[in-house]
Amino acid sequence: MDDINAPTRRQLFETIGKAGGLVALYQSMTALGHAAETQFHGPPVLSGAKKGATVVVLGAGLAGMLAAYELAKAGYKVQILEYQTRAGGRNYTLRGGDSHTEIDGTTQQVGFAPGNYLNPGPWRIPHHHRTLLHYCKALGVALEPFIQLNHNAYIHNTDALGGKPIRYKELATDFKGHISELLGKSLNQGALDDKVTAEDKERLIDALRNWGVLDKKLSYASSLKVSGQRGYDVPPGGGVTGAPTASQIDSLHDVLDSKVWNTMSFYFTYVMQTTMFQPVGGIDMIGKAFAREVGQMITYNARVSKIAQNDQGVEITYADNSTGIVGTVKADWCVCTIPLSVLGQLDVQVSDAKVAAIKAVPYSGMVKTGLEFKRRFWEEDESIYGGHSFTDQPISLISYPNFDFFKKSPAVLLGAFASGAAGYQFAGMTPEQRIEAALAQGEKIHPQYRQEFMNGTSVAWSRVPWTLGCCAQWSEDARKQHYQNLVSMDGRVVLAGEHASYYGCWMEGAMLSSIDAITRLHKRALEA
Amino acid sequence: MDDINAPTRRQLFETIGKAGGLVALYQSMTALGHAAETQFHGPPVLSGAKKGATVVVLGAGLAGMLAAYELAKAGYKVQILEYQTRAGGRNYTLRGGDSHTEIDGTTQQVGFAPGNYLNPGPWRIPHHHRTLLHYCKALGVALEPFIQLNHNAYIHNTDALGGKPIRYKELATDFKGHISELLGKSLNQGALDDKVTAEDKERLIDALRNWGVLDKKLSYASSLKVSGQRGYDVPPGGGVTGAPTASQIDSLHDVLDSKVWNTMSFYFTYVMQTTMFQPVGGIDMIGKAFAREVGQMITYNARVSKIAQNDQGVEITYADNSTGIVGTVKADWCVCTIPLSVLGQLDVQVSDAKVAAIKAVPYSGMVKTGLEFKRRFWEEDESIYGGHSFTDQPISLISYPNFDFFKKSPAVLLGAFASGAAGYQFAGMTPEQRIEAALAQGEKIHPQYRQEFMNGTSVAWSRVPWTLGCCAQWSEDARKQHYQNLVSMDGRVVLAGEHASYYGCWMEGAMLSSIDAITRLHKRALEA
Repeated sequence: MDDINAPTRRQLFETIGKAGGLVALYQSMTALGHAAETQFHGPPVLSGAKKGATVVVLGAGLAGMLAAYELAKAGYKVQILEYQTRAGGRNYTLRGGDSHTEIDGTTQQVGFAPGNYLNPGPWRIPHHHRTLLHYCKALGVALEPFIQLNHNAYIHNTDALGGKPIRYKELATDFKGHISELLGKSLNQGALDDKVTAEDKERLIDALRNWGVLDKKLSYASSLKVSGQRGYDVPPGGGVTGAPTASQIDSLHDVLDSKVWNTMSFYFTYVMQTTMFQPVGGIDMIGKAFAREVGQMITYNARVSKIAQNDQGVEITYADNSTGIVGTVKADWCVCTIPLSVLGQLDVQVSDAKVAAIKAVPYSGMVKTGLEFKRRFWEEDESIYGGHSFTDQPISLISYPNFDFFKKSPAVLLGAFASGAAGYQFAGMTPEQRIEAALAQGEKIHPQYRQEFMNGTSVAWSRVPWTLGCCAQWSEDARKQHYQNLVSMDGRVVLAGEHASYYGCWMEGAMLSSIDAITRLHKRALEA
Repeated sequence: MDDINAPTRRQLFETIGKAGGLVALYQSMTALGHAAETQFHGPPVLSGAKKGATVVVLGAGLAGMLAAYELAKAGYKVQILEYQTRAGGRNYTLRGGDSHTEIDGTTQQVGFAPGNYLNPGPWRIPHHHRTLLHYCKALGVALEPFIQLNHNAYIHNTDALGGKPIRYKELATDFKGHISELLGKSLNQGALDDKVTAEDKERLIDALRNWGVLDKKLSYASSLKVSGQRGYDVPPGGGVTGAPTASQIDSLHDVLDSKVWNTMSFYFTYVMQTTMFQPVGGIDMIGKAFAREVGQMITYNARVSKIAQNDQGVEITYADNSTGIVGTVKADWCVCTIPLSVLGQLDVQVSDAKVAAIKAVPYSGMVKTGLEFKRRFWEEDESIYGGHSFTDQPISLISYPNFDFFKKSPAVLLGAFASGAAGYQFAGMTPEQRIEAALAQGEKIHPQYRQEFMNGTSVAWSRVPWTLGCCAQWSEDARKQHYQNLVSMDGRVVLAGEHASYYGCWMEGAMLSSIDAITRLHKRALEA
């Protein structure tokens, strides 16, 4: 949605529309990335930077590196200041041999076997995140499917069905069966005749009979046909004893206890829908790919303390994390991708409205815990390959690895993804306590846990020194009052990152925000 | 469900149950493959065949090769007679350079680019098909995810919504929204108070509000929240223009026109649920893996004409397809995996009841058409990565390749999967007409079809000389009357294959049937 190209593009479409009819128009639109589900219209077309023009980028996460990559291509001289000793920001991966330290100095050594990893931050890529997919392709990041919906994973609710984990397919089939029965009978009784035409009523009853797997009396009842969705007591086999037997459905009351619709809704969420992807080898393959392009522009270990500007340019003050030596960088323009949780504590010379915006957005405090087990018992014993089991316990879910399926070797699963109050509860624990909590809650779902456990690690985002939180949590009110003030160009400074987007907490948001920011910066720079 | 081991196993469980409590029992059960969703309890434990005992296996498909593999391990001397010049049977894959010929002599040359393929027969493996998964692992067949449910693929119905393809997510979201509204209002009006307790009524209304994305008045209406499932008019973005706009929902009437519940039900079918797999490189990797083990036992080009037996053994008469020379094979036992469609035409010396059973089962006549295109426009233009689009046209679906995502090269999709009347309609066409029909129907969904098309091939199973149909279509009545007669051991002959299972048309059925058959054969052989 860049300001420069939009009118031209629209004129082009109008011309094509007149010339070749709707099919040609559709083809041209889709070929150009429109009529797809994204605001991404290809990488920004920036060129002709003024000779010698300079940009300082604060933060070597995805937003910062994308900005540096595209601005350098446009002819700017770019320098990046990065707090850490590595690029990627929250796009990072923990492997055996890594260590990580929280704000109080607590350090964890990661003990995973070679090839295993935890993505503490972002970990999955929806099919419509075209910006991210574009750069993965352009920079050679191999992707593989991320199994999102797994009908055979569990729903676990402490107060439902005796606290037993139940397969998603069983509860979801029962949920739609019961509501189909109720709606079918209600329609049959004429209770909705004022809302549905006679024709649609008949069609809807047929639909419910099919979709809900109802019997001739429009009842949802145990049968082989119903088992053909929720699973059998004895599944079909071969030869003499091949006949299947039906499973027993759960009552509406039990299904309501399970709250399975939460999971059913989750799978329907736009950003959670299939097909999803993940980079082969860990999410940080994306950050590393960008770093291959812009690594030479990065000054690591640089703790920014001040962002000053005047009509001529910006001046950034920073200290080296190891030596304490203070330095400054001067540039014509600044793209600041520092998380608001940190930026709000710095001396930033921008309008009061932008300062207020920076301070208006709280950050989430998610905690992820990776657990390594001796074997893939969820696959071998329980036929669960990737995807998630959900629980009402603080860990919220168990997510299974989406690579190395069937492999005979230790494997890491995500044993906790605690957010909200549970996130702060986990963050308040020692690393050992977090592992113990993840095991104690997880074994309610997988009794194999204790026997198979090897080691684990956890990342509490609220305690990560370089971001002090996971990602921006915009409220609707804050969005109305502050969003445009946050993203507007302020003199020679523009902000970018997931916090400067409507795709908060997603890599796509960081990248779309960055493209928008540098497009505006470039336009301003050419006008200046 | 082998007769020999089942009681022992049960006794073992009882012992464990008493000793270690429920968790130990569960662990032992799952470790042994129980409480999982399969009748597979590990490969058959056959050993101690009588010295010199011989078995002739008819057919080198999966059932036949599994039988040969396990019987040879048990000590039998095994010979396999195979009609074709290759092993694998319906487990096969067409690649560039291959040719295939139908019963009337019509031959197609396959023109696909290297790496591309069509699986004319089986093509996907449900996560609960443990027999197949076991042998893939044991024989080193690499598997990769088969994308089944794709929220972003299309539903196309000629008479619905102006004949436009609509994304699955849009229609499915609207379907559940409308029925939630109707049921919610019905409950609110007290129309179901005799069927639902007051407590459950309140909980169910809450569930419908959440799952159906209803507003405060329990109405399903266009909103950003609803767009957060069905997709936006303008999706979320970054920076100044990042705000999304809502899409417009479809009316109940339009949604009913689309018959989207058929697809929603399909995804809930036990054998269609996620997670699914496919072999890397083509389904025939499974047959090839078995052939590596038993290839030296196979006599190719052998057209069986007669199966005779007496108290001493069996005698198989066959002719060499190239030379016409007739030969016989004598053995103690026979495992016959010849499809019933062919077997019914041979001279088979078994009981009248078995002959009747063999003739009682019609075969389906599916037609698959693979189309190769210059580029993956469904990915590049439409963000569809794997999965299926469904249509009410005879092609029934378009299925997208589940490998080489994002690759810049020609790709093959499944452009027709015609069954029932449509299958026979396609089978009656020339190969060129089938391609034209697939293109004409497919371009209603993807207007890029004609511009991007390169070449295609089709397999009409009813016209394949070595099987004369796709797979067995048991009716419930035929099952009652004939199934046990079909699978029972008849003297020295036992039948195996997908037709001798309750998993008709699935590789798993062929393999479970084979295990059951050889387990009974071995028991009988030891008693003989």
